Amino acid sequence: MTESLHDKNLRGFASDNYSGVHPDILTALATANEGHQVSYGEDVYTEKLTEVFESHFGPGIEVYPVFNGTGANVLSLQAALPRWGAVIAAKTAHINMDEGGAPERVGGLKLLTVETADGKLTPELIDREAWGWGDEHRAQPLAVSITQVTELGTCYTPEEIKAIADHVHERGMVLHMDGSRLANAAAHLGLPFKAFTTDAGVDVLSFGGTKNGLIFGEAVIALNPAATPGLKYLRKLNMQLASKMRFISAQFIALLEGDLWLRSAGHANAMAARLRAGIDQIPGVQATQQTQANGVFAILPEGVADRVREKFRFYDWDEARREVRWMCSFDTTEADIDAFLAAIRSEVSAS
Amino acid sequence: MTESLHDKNLRGFASDNYSGVHPDILTALATANEGHQVSYGEDVYTEKLTEVFESHFGPGIEVYPVFNGTGANVLSLQAALPRWGAVIAAKTAHINMDEGGAPERVGGLKLLTVETADGKLTPELIDREAWGWGDEHRAQPLAVSITQVTELGTCYTPEEIKAIADHVHERGMVLHMDGSRLANAAAHLGLPFKAFTTDAGVDVLSFGGTKNGLIFGEAVIALNPAATPGLKYLRKLNMQLASKMRFISAQFIALLEGDLWLRSAGHANAMAARLRAGIDQIPGVQATQQTQANGVFAILPEGVADRVREKFRFYDWDEARREVRWMCSFDTTEADIDAFLAAIRSEVSAS
Amino acid sequence: MTESLHDKNLRGFASDNYSGVHPDILTALATANEGHQVSYGEDVYTEKLTEVFESHFGPGIEVYPVFNGTGANVLSLQAALPRWGAVIAAKTAHINMDEGGAPERVGGLKLLTVETADGKLTPELIDREAWGWGDEHRAQPLAVSITQVTELGTCYTPEEIKAIADHVHERGMVLHMDGSRLANAAAHLGLPFKAFTTDAGVDVLSFGGTKNGLIFGEAVIALNPAATPGLKYLRKLNMQLASKMRFISAQFIALLEGDLWLRSAGHANAMAARLRAGIDQIPGVQATQQTQANGVFAILPEGVADRVREKFRFYDWDEARREVRWMCSFDTTEADIDAFLAAIRSEVSAS
Amino acid sequence: MTESLHDKNLRGFASDNYSGVHPDILTALATANEGHQVSYGEDVYTEKLTEVFESHFGPGIEVYPVFNGTGANVLSLQAALPRWGAVIAAKTAHINMDEGGAPERVGGLKLLTVETADGKLTPELIDREAWGWGDEHRAQPLAVSITQVTELGTCYTPEEIKAIADHVHERGMVLHMDGSRLANAAAHLGLPFKAFTTDAGVDVLSFGGTKNGLIFGEAVIALNPAATPGLKYLRKLNMQLASKMRFISAQFIALLEGDLWLRSAGHANAMAARLRAGIDQIPGVQATQQTQANGVFAILPEGVADRVREKFRFYDWDEARREVRWMCSFDTTEADIDAFLAAIRSEVSAS
Repeated sequence: MTESLHDKNLRGFASDNYSGVHPDILTALATANEGHQVSYGEDVYTEKLTEVFESHFGPGIEVYPVFNGTGANVLSLQAALPRWGAVIAAKTAHINMDEGGAPERVGGLKLLTVETADGKLTPELIDREAWGWGDEHRAQPLAVSITQVTELGTCYTPEEIKAIADHVHERGMVLHMDGSRLANAAAHLGLPFKAFTTDAGVDVLSFGGTKNGLIFGEAVIALNPAATPGLKYLRKLNMQLASKMRFISAQFIALLEGDLWLRSAGHANAMAARLRAGIDQIPGVQATQQTQANGVFAILPEGVADRVREKFRFYDWDEARREVRWMCSFDTTEADIDAFLAAIRSEVSAS
Repeated sequence: MTESLHDKNLRGFASDNYSGVHPDILTALATANEGHQVSYGEDVYTEKLTEVFESHFGPGIEVYPVFNGTGANVLSLQAALPRWGAVIAAKTAHINMDEGGAPERVGGLKLLTVETADGKLTPELIDREAWGWGDEHRAQPLAVSITQVTELGTCYTPEEIKAIADHVHERGMVLHMDGSRLANAAAHLGLPFKAFTTDAGVDVLSFGGTKNGLIFGEAVIALNPAATPGLKYLRKLNMQLASKMRFISAQFIALLEGDLWLRSAGHANAMAARLRAGIDQIPGVQATQQTQANGVFAILPEGVADRVREKFRFYDWDEARREVRWMCSFDTTEADIDAFLAAIRSEVSAS
Repeated sequence: MTESLHDKNLRGFASDNYSGVHPDILTALATANEGHQVSYGEDVYTEKLTEVFESHFGPGIEVYPVFNGTGANVLSLQAALPRWGAVIAAKTAHINMDEGGAPERVGGLKLLTVETADGKLTPELIDREAWGWGDEHRAQPLAVSITQVTELGTCYTPEEIKAIADHVHERGMVLHMDGSRLANAAAHLGLPFKAFTTDAGVDVLSFGGTKNGLIFGEAVIALNPAATPGLKYLRKLNMQLASKMRFISAQFIALLEGDLWLRSAGHANAMAARLRAGIDQIPGVQATQQTQANGVFAILPEGVADRVREKFRFYDWDEARREVRWMCSFDTTEADIDAFLAAIRSEVSAS
Repeated sequence: MTESLHDKNLRGFASDNYSGVHPDILTALATANEGHQVSYGEDVYTEKLTEVFESHFGPGIEVYPVFNGTGANVLSLQAALPRWGAVIAAKTAHINMDEGGAPERVGGLKLLTVETADGKLTPELIDREAWGWGDEHRAQPLAVSITQVTELGTCYTPEEIKAIADHVHERGMVLHMDGSRLANAAAHLGLPFKAFTTDAGVDVLSFGGTKNGLIFGEAVIALNPAATPGLKYLRKLNMQLASKMRFISAQFIALLEGDLWLRSAGHANAMAARLRAGIDQIPGVQATQQTQANGVFAILPEGVADRVREKFRFYDWDEARREVRWMCSFDTTEADIDAFLAAIRSEVSAS
């Protein structure tokens, strides 16, 4: 197949995974190609990968590349929990809303969810479900899962994460972070990953690659390996072990060895900021969350969303109140944003 | 990452997944790149994929790209079975020996296994476990899984598959085929895929791509979609749904639109045949199975395997009787085979 | 063991399962004893049981005796749902709060829970989670579970159930009723079971025996057997199939052939009504739910609960607002109620 | 229900669970009745139960009454194993043949089965599947399950169990014993339970009550509690926690406080011995296993089984070779045996 079937200039705002692959990542795939390498992770790229992740997260960690984010989350939480464990999470968490019940069905995990205003848990919100230890009638709350960047585009500060981690650990629970957009959080915070993960007390992390420009590939990072035994076995039996793993690892090396991760995430964030600045100037459009990473949430006047969607694809977030979600990617351009804003402006005026 | 970390000339005989990616497949990834495409399979490449598979398997099928072979097998069998179902398979089947218990733990499926001489089931062998329907104390045998090429490097003829399919269907069971090396079987048989799958009565197929030169990617092919409801949901909840699915689909298009699949598989088979011809000339080395695809199984004199392994990696198959397995790939060269044979010859002479 | 180890006069208000067995039930066990009967349900008592249940629920039903209520609920819901199904339930539902995660871990079922004021769902409340069909990222809402009597001691009217059933069926979902206290609901409504189950559109029912005076024993009643295939197999593999099943069946016959079920439940309800009437006279004690069956919920002044508990065992319901739950049983006496009321009165006065 | 529906004089040889309840057990139920006791195991009978079991198995054990044998087995094995664990067992084991796939589906456990001549494993047989630790492609063999009395009516000696336990422990595995007929083994061996369980190195035991005259009730006995964490939670979430647990516990007290367990089991064994002695005198009938407990296995001449079955119910064991299984119970009488032998003799003569 040497001719593409799609319009390479088309870009939308539906999801950061509508994007393709960063050219440097494609190069890395070619670099890792040819010759034979031991499969299932005994290759030299995967060997180097731990070193690369340690440069970001500190020594003593374990790195388990997997296929996708749902896999990374379910593995992390299964490893963190006994069979009778439950996970406290925000109601909006991806594990609760968007994983087709995988945590429950594959993981056997009960989720104890809490309503939040902005997708962020706090010690107080956690306490609404953090009770009942020792009572076998209650699935035991033994892990808390937070998302950084949250599903609502907001970021936890290191202090907020530290406060949660202390609270969680004092109660004998494990702290998981779903970091499918962790690079966007780092870009927003202007901090190294370590500052708001390892150093803040996160025990196990789902590290996202796909939304940051990989072809596919996420990783479970056991920051506190004692808290998550058995990841090696769980990855295999949960069908997340790639045979030609060198190609996931090579991508992550290309992403993380230099600053590609930061450039791509920073750019996506900047495009979201540009979009946000634009809509703040459009009367009748009301942003609903802080724009801290690469997503913008807004309420549009009646009918506007559907008309704009004729040109640019994006999703409703809360149809009942006409709230939509717009996501920017590493490959979103200023021209894309400006054309999109023009379309919104035009439809708002017409409404 | 622009410099490779490994010796690109090194090739071994441990597994066909030690190989890398065919250059045409890398090209396909680049071709499908850039611009935005709807994620999770609503892209134009995945749309075209059904057409491409239909050209091989006939109309009316459903195609579900997934990440890996274990995923394809567990999805296929779950879809084929109610919660109380069991699967009859050869004891040597990959689902029984090499999937870390995924069929049992993730699929909730009991395997009823049968000893075979050559990895191939027959109606008679199936009947050893095909009984007890209606008795709730027995997990209900409602599917049979066969592997083509088998784990022992042998191929079923279309007639053998047809006989099994008829036997299976008469008893109200579903026939699954694990086709992680289906292209190698087609190359051996000199037949189109359809002749020994759809036309032979297979209901659901795990179609292998990775061992045939993809970077990653397998597909569940529902040849008889009525027999395997819910694959769409099962793929997601079993964590096998790729977000940037266009890149799995583009690889399969590149593999299957022309004859890349056949050239690659035929070459691997030819290399195995060359290896087999060579060892048949070495006194003291005893081949143990027919060499019908890309694998050779042989018994070596005491000590030989370990000494040859100092130069070429491969696995023991049955250590107790000194049986080893050698696999050839699309990128194995005649020179590789000849050097390997020379090494075996040399160590056998020395023993 | 011919001497009891406990004080046979002691009664409390913690749960209706603190009670023992009705004497008529003990007699039934003896009646069914001696001689041999085919195990696992092929006995004459279980044969008769269907007839007995049909006299209450109408013809064409299927009856599956099981060990306990959690088992009955998980079986019912598993049978009603494909592997990708989810259940809409009140947040207070027993399946969500008190089954140790069995629906999720054993059943593989996601629960989609809704806050309610009184433990009762409505079509409007159901709609908060009844959406997303066809989207594989969302566990598919394909069943609704309601509890009759609810966990808050309230009863649905037949009309309310009918409205829910119609709503549920129009959306292609199945309606399950957790009837662990179904007899108490019948006694409250003054209606036969059929009027608010089969006739109201319930598809599958967990019928409670233990809280109505059995030694143990519940039953899954498939009122609409087509909606819940495989119960026979699911009962066995979910470890709910009793070998000496004649003894569960004989108990249910004794309970349901005459009016023992109604006398026992009616008495328990009457005792709760007496308790409620009493506390309504105590200033500072505030009932929080209607008393429609055998449970009373109330808020007590600070410190009162713990002091009363020194004499009578009962549970906090919502500790944060000092709400407690009191349950009456078939063996609660008027003297028990009066003594309990006196204790409450005394401690309230002292506070 | 005061009149029985069945012929109290009818007895057969199909299973020891066709029998009813020992009269002393019925008495115990009445003794434990009346008044209120805390549910779910916080009652005085359950409290005493640990003491009673400790008198048989030694101090430091934990006792978890459950509903049935499948439940006891799955709980024991789940507690003994991580999610990636597998169990080595005889192919004839109840967990493999007769539990409807519960170990796989509910437990998530892969069974690695071995053919045996007499239902008994040995260290050598265990080694056929005891390999592959550390390889995530293989479900990790971390427990061995043996049955005492085996499904073939044979008993392990204490020395045989000790040899297995040592072998198992040296390899870091846990030893489970399915003791659904443990009392019959004790009666055969003439030894206290402790001699061939705790003292022989068994880690966790499924202790059978139902086949020894209870109405229902088994128990998981954690002989080495450190090897089986979480049983408290697993019992609840696996739907094996009885609310009115005092009635299971009271039965076990009645069974085990005195020698009822031994009298009942010894009687059943004696009846099997009488049957065996009888058939050894019938030309053409060939016993196939040693008769060490309450079961007799024999091959009958063509057609005899079906004709005898017109009067006495029993099961085929291996239909292909005309092997049948006959079980005796605590309530089997000498007259039953003699009448049965007469029937066999008569049909054999006629054939």
